[in-house]
Amino acid sequence: MKSDLLSRRDLDFLLFEWLGIDELTKRERFADHSAETFSDVLDLCEELATHYFAPHNKRSDANEPTFDGSTVTVIPEVKEALDAFAAADLIGLSMDQRFGGSQLPMAVAQAGFAYFAAANVATSGYVMLTTANANLLTKFGTAEQIATFVTPMLSGRFSGTMALSETQAGSSLADILTRAEPQEDGSYRLFGSKMWISGAEHEMTDNIVNLVLAKIPGGPAGTKGISLFIVPKFLVGDDGSIGERNDVALAGLNHKMGQRGITNTVLNFGDGTHRPGGQPGAVGYLIGEPHRGITYMFHMMNEARLGVGMGAVALGYTGYLKSLEYARSRPQGRPATAKDPSTPQVPIIEHPDVKRMLLAQKAYVEGALALELYCGRLVDWQHSAESDDELQRSTDLLDILTPVGKSWPSQWCLEANSLAIQVHGGYGYTREYDVEQLYRDNRLNPIHEGTHGIQSLDLLGRKVIQRGGASLAELGRVIATTIAEANAAGGELTEPAAALTAAWSRLVSVTAGMFASGDIDAALANSVVYLEAFGHLVIAWIWLEQLCAAHGKTGDFYDGKRQAAQYFFRYELPKTGPQLDLLERLDHTTLEMRDAWF
Amino acid sequence: MKSDLLSRRDLDFLLFEWLGIDELTKRERFADHSAETFSDVLDLCEELATHYFAPHNKRSDANEPTFDGSTVTVIPEVKEALDAFAAADLIGLSMDQRFGGSQLPMAVAQAGFAYFAAANVATSGYVMLTTANANLLTKFGTAEQIATFVTPMLSGRFSGTMALSETQAGSSLADILTRAEPQEDGSYRLFGSKMWISGAEHEMTDNIVNLVLAKIPGGPAGTKGISLFIVPKFLVGDDGSIGERNDVALAGLNHKMGQRGITNTVLNFGDGTHRPGGQPGAVGYLIGEPHRGITYMFHMMNEARLGVGMGAVALGYTGYLKSLEYARSRPQGRPATAKDPSTPQVPIIEHPDVKRMLLAQKAYVEGALALELYCGRLVDWQHSAESDDELQRSTDLLDILTPVGKSWPSQWCLEANSLAIQVHGGYGYTREYDVEQLYRDNRLNPIHEGTHGIQSLDLLGRKVIQRGGASLAELGRVIATTIAEANAAGGELTEPAAALTAAWSRLVSVTAGMFASGDIDAALANSVVYLEAFGHLVIAWIWLEQLCAAHGKTGDFYDGKRQAAQYFFRYELPKTGPQLDLLERLDHTTLEMRDAWF
Repeated sequence: MKSDLLSRRDLDFLLFEWLGIDELTKRERFADHSAETFSDVLDLCEELATHYFAPHNKRSDANEPTFDGSTVTVIPEVKEALDAFAAADLIGLSMDQRFGGSQLPMAVAQAGFAYFAAANVATSGYVMLTTANANLLTKFGTAEQIATFVTPMLSGRFSGTMALSETQAGSSLADILTRAEPQEDGSYRLFGSKMWISGAEHEMTDNIVNLVLAKIPGGPAGTKGISLFIVPKFLVGDDGSIGERNDVALAGLNHKMGQRGITNTVLNFGDGTHRPGGQPGAVGYLIGEPHRGITYMFHMMNEARLGVGMGAVALGYTGYLKSLEYARSRPQGRPATAKDPSTPQVPIIEHPDVKRMLLAQKAYVEGALALELYCGRLVDWQHSAESDDELQRSTDLLDILTPVGKSWPSQWCLEANSLAIQVHGGYGYTREYDVEQLYRDNRLNPIHEGTHGIQSLDLLGRKVIQRGGASLAELGRVIATTIAEANAAGGELTEPAAALTAAWSRLVSVTAGMFASGDIDAALANSVVYLEAFGHLVIAWIWLEQLCAAHGKTGDFYDGKRQAAQYFFRYELPKTGPQLDLLERLDHTTLEMRDAWF
Repeated sequence: MKSDLLSRRDLDFLLFEWLGIDELTKRERFADHSAETFSDVLDLCEELATHYFAPHNKRSDANEPTFDGSTVTVIPEVKEALDAFAAADLIGLSMDQRFGGSQLPMAVAQAGFAYFAAANVATSGYVMLTTANANLLTKFGTAEQIATFVTPMLSGRFSGTMALSETQAGSSLADILTRAEPQEDGSYRLFGSKMWISGAEHEMTDNIVNLVLAKIPGGPAGTKGISLFIVPKFLVGDDGSIGERNDVALAGLNHKMGQRGITNTVLNFGDGTHRPGGQPGAVGYLIGEPHRGITYMFHMMNEARLGVGMGAVALGYTGYLKSLEYARSRPQGRPATAKDPSTPQVPIIEHPDVKRMLLAQKAYVEGALALELYCGRLVDWQHSAESDDELQRSTDLLDILTPVGKSWPSQWCLEANSLAIQVHGGYGYTREYDVEQLYRDNRLNPIHEGTHGIQSLDLLGRKVIQRGGASLAELGRVIATTIAEANAAGGELTEPAAALTAAWSRLVSVTAGMFASGDIDAALANSVVYLEAFGHLVIAWIWLEQLCAAHGKTGDFYDGKRQAAQYFFRYELPKTGPQLDLLERLDHTTLEMRDAWF
């Protein structure tokens, strides 16, 4: 199948030639699989994404969900797509077989999922949330909770949401006000309001399983007093039947710039719209222990953050392919040195500046895709670690790469979408073409699941220094390994290997200097600059990895990899120079700025 | 009046304290005016923009023009706004008094117009096009053409458009196909189709004056065979009465990501929908001489490009002010060093990273506004030059600054809008707030009136080398003057003056090296990198100019200027280092990329 969603050739290169993902089948967890089943899954995902998700992408953007005061209406193609997804057993793709999943490697599941995000990021949001919800419940829920809620999510009867934020508490979850009052039967009653809940309140599944953060009265202040609850839209009988309506009520829909096809809601819990069992409050079931909700949620959130990153990659990647196709087919202008107006116009791909815009997109989206798949394999190593040391090292590395895996694609694959518009010229700015929607859709990614600012504090204020700098050291170790391999190979790898060596060593010394200074305020005031420099270094390393994997191989595909890598090393990596200068001198400009001066 | 459209304090600083715009009243052209009339015009513009343009900005975005096959419907508030604008005599604000204009300085007219663009860029597009159209006609039209078409445009009875592009000819105007056949009575009949025509086909004015590029059969190939015609929607009688319908027919509306409130059309000329005088073809009247259409249009286009730049500034500026207001009123989180969750949340403006995002916006939008007003004053100097030398120098400088004045705000004030969204968090991504629309609206600006790529070729391939490098030399001279003033002042001006000295001298030597190399293909392949580096240098110089104007003055406003300048010099100007490195070695990466490698 030839589609413009993703490049299967690139996926095969990254998964098999580079990451050697088939090696995972030697491990017990993945022993039932083979390179062939991995390949079949990708075929299936591409086919379903093409036939069920892509065709209504524009229509669901132009016809966002509506609320008439009682019912939310979503265009019917969305349900058809979700049903097809569930019928193909894709919700539990990476989940343990004991819970009904397929136990495929995360790297393969991610790659498969990227097809759906590229085809229709809004509709795929419903299944992404259901998957994340189900994964969390299998990890921390009871057997009964799993049977009651996870099993019907896997079959597509139920869907799931994550209800964290409140209007007054977005980035600052410590300030949520929703409360959960314990009942005599061991259940809870919830009262409060949640904001930005995607995938909530629709009629496409028999039930919606909301995972809700709330505070049990009397608990500690801040995040240490937050617990996690299952609050279904309908109560469920012991036999799995749909029972009474729970007191979960839609207060309103948010209207977004993009990703319009998925409901995004303000949800009220326990506002008296319904009275389950004749009592006030929304019935909730505690997950795990009280006051540990943030820990459970963060377990899910790391995977969700990589999921956001992969969503950004998918949007960037399909925009790149669409603009490439446009550039090949659109005649306009003539070479700079051949201005004779009587000669035919040439396809715009022949103009060097158009090649620059395509090459930049290629460098961004292929670099970012490779990073996400690398992180996916780290998750797989965690899930199948054969020693404590392997588990620790995978975890250290994944910890420090996660803020980059979330933020870098959110920034640079959005920039890729902007370049895709620019390649199209005026056409790209219209809804008659596809790329303007991708740009709108992708603009959400630097915001949700932790803004850029939050990611930068996570990186510099936590991940870099955790366990005595063990994560940073582990990343340094794998980078050094790549550089050694590149230097051994020589040839076209010498220049980028030298550039990465210099840049990484500078980052390490700048980082040490920032902490040695004791001027933590200035360090944190520049944390986003740090995140951006760090991210570019990580992607440079990922490109050097790809160069190693392509080394000695001939053909257009590998030449393209080499040229994109060269672009990244020459046009992008040098941007980190001024950023590191700024960090080195711990610039105080923003810190010293005063409200009254604006 | 306190509005969030623009900062009047900043406008007053730039126009009066920095540019000394009241000095212009000593010149004959502006002798009827005073600082007071300038100020009154700004008051009037702010008031009309606030009362007639801002209130329907969201509504016209959500209810774009519709076409039922015969009539285009635009929400009624648009006509009310256009009528109010015309009734206040604003269309001819900078036009000669002999044509019915107010003959105000361009710098003042631009500043006034920026209020309308900030309030509602789509609705203000109608009047901007009418103004540009009328200005072109007064310059190149006959007395009769001016009387017939310009006078009713000034009063608001007629409106104007610019019809250049065709579906197959956007950036490459040489390839237009619309033909104009001469008639015995001296008029022409036009046949062809035009694309991307904003402000065409609506019922809000009695007539629409389309300025249309077309080829007279038998003329030279390419741009040298293009002529310019007036093609009104309705023919106009000798007494100014509206006559027969001309054969200008709407083929369809384009549906854009932003700027949705203004019609954007495909227009057919002479397709037989109407038969004026019983004959086929759209009646057109030649402007000036045959085959000189591109020259006339380019005269208008330079002002239009600065107009696009100012539109981008206006959108960036109002987004900055809206995000500033939000940051001051939104409590969220606590200082990094005070995590006690029982303390109240602080307004987000107290977080250093939010200050960074606000300071970046301030540095972008105030720098870009200052550049546009500086260019406006150059136009005023051209219009009132007291010597050939002054005229030549103003022209040289304006020529080289125009591609920057068009592209820099289009890039960086769009980035400001993205930061305004980011400051708002999730709210910024919703249509319930204002900033997402600004971001969508602003994304057009790097495309129309010559894309970034076109601007970069204009800069490097034409403006830098024209007249033996006279434009570049003149810019170097004024920059050196600023640096000398800064060095004489000393203090906080020393560091930025030194940075600019070094960066400018490097740009000059890199530019010389690029041309000396003879490798013009590689130079032009990196023209966008050149444009970006050049633009940042120009804005750094503009910030140094502002620092000079603020020197020795005390108070929050001036401290804010100093801090924003410091931000630009420390966080932005250093970005030019790697760009100049790349240009210096004339990188071939994009040039060598091949279609088959993508």
